[in-house]
Amino acid sequence: MAQISLTFPDNSVREFDAGVSTLAVAKSIASSLAKKAVAGELNGTMVDIEQPLNQDGNFKIFTTDDVEGLQVLRNTAAFVLGAAIKKLHADVHFGEHQANDDGFYLDTDRAAGQIAISELPEIKKAMQKIISANQPIERQLVDKTELLETFKDDPYQESLVKAIDSVQIAVYQLGDYISFGDRALLKTMAPLKHFELLSVAGAYWQGKSSNPMLQRIYGTAFFKAADLEADLKRRAEIKERDHRTIGRDLDIFFVDPEVGAGLPYWMPNGATVRRVIERYIIDKEVANGYQHVYTPVLANLNLYKTSGHWAHYREDMFPPMDMGDGEFLELRPMNCPSHIQIYNHHNRSYRELPVRIAELGMMHRYEKSGALSGLQRVREMTLNDGHTFLAPDQIKEEFKSVLKMMMEVYDDFNITDYTFRLSYRDPANTEKYFDDDEMWNNAQSMLKSAMDDLGLDYYEAEGEAAFYGPKLDVQTKTALGGEETMSTIQLDFMMPEKFDLVYTGADGQEHRPVMMHRGIVGTMERFIAYLMEMYKGAFPTWLAPTQVEIIPVNLDLHSDYAKDIQKQMAAKGLRVKLDLRNEKMGYKIREAQTQKIPYTLVVGDQELADQTVSVRRYGEKDAADEPLKEFIESTEADVANYSRVSSDAANSSIEKKLN
Amino acid sequence: MAQISLTFPDNSVREFDAGVSTLAVAKSIASSLAKKAVAGELNGTMVDIEQPLNQDGNFKIFTTDDVEGLQVLRNTAAFVLGAAIKKLHADVHFGEHQANDDGFYLDTDRAAGQIAISELPEIKKAMQKIISANQPIERQLVDKTELLETFKDDPYQESLVKAIDSVQIAVYQLGDYISFGDRALLKTMAPLKHFELLSVAGAYWQGKSSNPMLQRIYGTAFFKAADLEADLKRRAEIKERDHRTIGRDLDIFFVDPEVGAGLPYWMPNGATVRRVIERYIIDKEVANGYQHVYTPVLANLNLYKTSGHWAHYREDMFPPMDMGDGEFLELRPMNCPSHIQIYNHHNRSYRELPVRIAELGMMHRYEKSGALSGLQRVREMTLNDGHTFLAPDQIKEEFKSVLKMMMEVYDDFNITDYTFRLSYRDPANTEKYFDDDEMWNNAQSMLKSAMDDLGLDYYEAEGEAAFYGPKLDVQTKTALGGEETMSTIQLDFMMPEKFDLVYTGADGQEHRPVMMHRGIVGTMERFIAYLMEMYKGAFPTWLAPTQVEIIPVNLDLHSDYAKDIQKQMAAKGLRVKLDLRNEKMGYKIREAQTQKIPYTLVVGDQELADQTVSVRRYGEKDAADEPLKEFIESTEADVANYSRVSSDAANSSIEKKLN
Repeated sequence: MAQISLTFPDNSVREFDAGVSTLAVAKSIASSLAKKAVAGELNGTMVDIEQPLNQDGNFKIFTTDDVEGLQVLRNTAAFVLGAAIKKLHADVHFGEHQANDDGFYLDTDRAAGQIAISELPEIKKAMQKIISANQPIERQLVDKTELLETFKDDPYQESLVKAIDSVQIAVYQLGDYISFGDRALLKTMAPLKHFELLSVAGAYWQGKSSNPMLQRIYGTAFFKAADLEADLKRRAEIKERDHRTIGRDLDIFFVDPEVGAGLPYWMPNGATVRRVIERYIIDKEVANGYQHVYTPVLANLNLYKTSGHWAHYREDMFPPMDMGDGEFLELRPMNCPSHIQIYNHHNRSYRELPVRIAELGMMHRYEKSGALSGLQRVREMTLNDGHTFLAPDQIKEEFKSVLKMMMEVYDDFNITDYTFRLSYRDPANTEKYFDDDEMWNNAQSMLKSAMDDLGLDYYEAEGEAAFYGPKLDVQTKTALGGEETMSTIQLDFMMPEKFDLVYTGADGQEHRPVMMHRGIVGTMERFIAYLMEMYKGAFPTWLAPTQVEIIPVNLDLHSDYAKDIQKQMAAKGLRVKLDLRNEKMGYKIREAQTQKIPYTLVVGDQELADQTVSVRRYGEKDAADEPLKEFIESTEADVANYSRVSSDAANSSIEKKLN
Repeated sequence: MAQISLTFPDNSVREFDAGVSTLAVAKSIASSLAKKAVAGELNGTMVDIEQPLNQDGNFKIFTTDDVEGLQVLRNTAAFVLGAAIKKLHADVHFGEHQANDDGFYLDTDRAAGQIAISELPEIKKAMQKIISANQPIERQLVDKTELLETFKDDPYQESLVKAIDSVQIAVYQLGDYISFGDRALLKTMAPLKHFELLSVAGAYWQGKSSNPMLQRIYGTAFFKAADLEADLKRRAEIKERDHRTIGRDLDIFFVDPEVGAGLPYWMPNGATVRRVIERYIIDKEVANGYQHVYTPVLANLNLYKTSGHWAHYREDMFPPMDMGDGEFLELRPMNCPSHIQIYNHHNRSYRELPVRIAELGMMHRYEKSGALSGLQRVREMTLNDGHTFLAPDQIKEEFKSVLKMMMEVYDDFNITDYTFRLSYRDPANTEKYFDDDEMWNNAQSMLKSAMDDLGLDYYEAEGEAAFYGPKLDVQTKTALGGEETMSTIQLDFMMPEKFDLVYTGADGQEHRPVMMHRGIVGTMERFIAYLMEMYKGAFPTWLAPTQVEIIPVNLDLHSDYAKDIQKQMAAKGLRVKLDLRNEKMGYKIREAQTQKIPYTLVVGDQELADQTVSVRRYGEKDAADEPLKEFIESTEADVANYSRVSSDAANSSIEKKLN
């Protein structure tokens, strides 16, 4: 009998009879290994555990402990899902399927209307029935021509077969359900106990929007019950924090793909939050010496040719509009050239520096439609943008003052989990960067010594700087465990060259300023998405769309008092709603909680008589009576101190960072 | 001798010898007429006063009292201007010339660089010399071919001659200056005493931007010294109020045609004014039950196909951007479809109506470049826009409440000179309008009775309504005597049909709402241009970019006190600048006046000792000492009551209108 030679990951080599299975190899090593083994891999190709091995090569065994093992389990689950649906619905065609780190999915197309989420329990039951029966899944190699004949009435499968460049194709079959593709499945269905069907969503056939829309069914599976439980809990948490879900439930925003993918509409609730934040950040910046401006979103394309955006960033830009006579107008992808226009509108003297220009600048970037997501990734966005023009020797002081302001802002929004990353040029490849050694050395050492002066921890990333200068990124942890760059301070030696920016120095000569690009809270869109996830939609009082809701116990007797309270509070600039609907009080209170309104007031006979209100704070079970006057004052204070417990406490948290 | 028969404006007919001159005809009527006569008109063609008349026809005599007489004077002035320039500069070619109600102009093209405004006095002197010499201007008829030969080295004049469809052309000559064209000139230059050269400006040859740029020299002339004086005074007034001049002098905004015609950049001063107004109007609207939103400036072109804008308004829209796959994105020309999206995002009940959606909505309109002017006519604008969706029986109450809010706003900006115009459909041509008689009759009578209820005067304009519904326009007088529509309330029966808008009525059935388009202060651009002209740039304290400027008498001794004052005032939200430059105090005070800053404070020893400030109000000569505390309080009050003398006085002015 012919022999094959298998090389194991530890580089040991062993000989086996040709046609040996992975399971037999595992048994030859240890019976405990054979018990846990779920598949093998020969020369990079996954193989079923009982599939005969007929080649020499590099060999691995995957067990229930490996991610590859998990993938085999999930591929099997996807297969069983298909078999179950086939049993229930004769009129279903299948599209693509996949198993991955997140679970598995299978695309379906039912003639009598797509499968609804409400049908998942029934499908799950059918899967469990198949698993209990535990019939073997048959694997065989079939000629491509034969498989094409099998799928001649199934355009999706036929097209998938056609795309395979191979004479023979591995096919799995269970009853009259047939599936193919490069993957390994379990030998027995017994381990497939801990799985769940999660959701359904439309998916274009092969991802092209010009193709028919199929229905994708998502699920997940684990070897252990505890792992499934933990995963479902994590998913629930994600769902609870998902800003798209919160955005819909709290009526913050919506996107209508028909009218424009990536172009959000801010509903009144979302617009209120955004307006409060915009005013806050503008006032903060003005108090810190920034000059706010408004500049046009359109400009002649030449502006972006000068800036270099057209050469290096064109893919993310919208198509230019041909206005005739050689004039092309372009939606700006960034605000820097606009602020350079502002700087350049006057002759500047060293006495004016640093000149700090800021704007809530609307920009347009053509993100791919697959990358778009709620408010997080959009095509039209408004950036809290700032550009400071300064003398090289002012870098350190300016950098420190931006950092301080940034940390004050974080504190006001109660953002505490962030880290600093300083990016330098690569000292081994200085020729790859803007050519001015002295400038780089000076700037990098100023940034570093500013961080040290402030006593801040930071990570130094050599070779991570942009072509045009070093930078500081502030990385925040997202509520879902990810990391994103919230703020950035970037020095730029190049743009002042490109636009020939100058200022007159004390010596009467022209000098070149350095430019500092700086964003504190990023775009309104992404920042508010971040806040929604961080707060789980329960905005602090100063940001909440509705800060106080008043519910009269009896509409006839207590509405006037409720209206009077509303009027008093509105006069103080507070956002107060009355619920005068003809509904039960308990229902109204529950609804106010669902809407995550910070304070719900109930007013009845006693409250009217005493000029008090019964206050229920969001998330608390019990209500407590408070004199109306005190409640109004404390709510005003709540707003004024950005809903922090006390402004002392807040300051101390910055000081802690700053020491 | 042959006779001609002249018919006078009073229809009297008289016979004269052929070849008689206008002057002779005038003499034959009255010597006083002959004295004042400057030209004649035979069958609609102007003739010189000494030109022989050889035809029968309708005949008029123009004197120094007629606008036509003034035109003859100005044509003569333009001729003398040309002759004077020709004397001074051999290398000048001339373009077109004109005399009109506003004065006269002549286009010039000097090889050695265009004529500068600084050269006008010299040119005026040369004109006066020619006038004193008072040589006759020779008029003669020249063959077109001969004239073409004369101008063979002058492309402009040659091209003008070519365009004349006549064998003989009237030519005027003085020395070697030759000019032609259909016009009459004075017989003697003696009346040309009261003239002025006003300005120079680039003008494309024949108005086409692809042609060379000539230099246009503007002037004016009158028969009487007093008229010239009054006109120059009026021009100074216009210049003083011109928002473009104010915009430059106070650093409010600029437009860079290279980067985008009609796309203004708001400098920090202008941005501050705009921000204050934006916050004011949003807060006002929110307090009046409007729900503010943010909606995208881009949308799929289909939205504007549905709304009808693409069919009827395309000329004013920017070109669509082709995104591939049949998707076209369009910069919105109006916000209505966006607000319809907001309305339509939820099912609406009669209980919610009226639904008031508002936004500071950025829009783009492709105005012709010739129509663009500063902030008044732009291509990118932000409209104080509102759309209310209401039941037909709510029209009257809603209309009244919008009107009241509008008048409060006018009052806060001290806009007092405005009138109301109600536009109805044409009762004789109802088929030209949206087809719903009951709706029209109901709506028109509601608007009228609302005006009557409020006791407001209004003008009724039948046939002036839009296709889709009746409207109210509020016409304001501009500072320069013009009129513009500041606000508008338009009913719209059509858009709710086009977008199939509904609400659920008390009967549980679907009903169609009426839409109300409504603008209070119009676009930020035009409104602020209007305010600049009205205030002559002297913004009231609540709007002024800088409200208070502090000047220390001695930089060493009093700067700390000045800084302390600034800090105290900034903490109250006031906009305060310090002038710590090394300049004379008088110079600083004058500059603060030039910048039209409401309050200039001077602080020296006495003020520091007494904790007072020496306050100079804008436009007042004298300063007065005030305790610092009182000054801060009174400035805060000044801002809080929108710089009105007292809020009582203000309210009474609305009440006067409203009774």
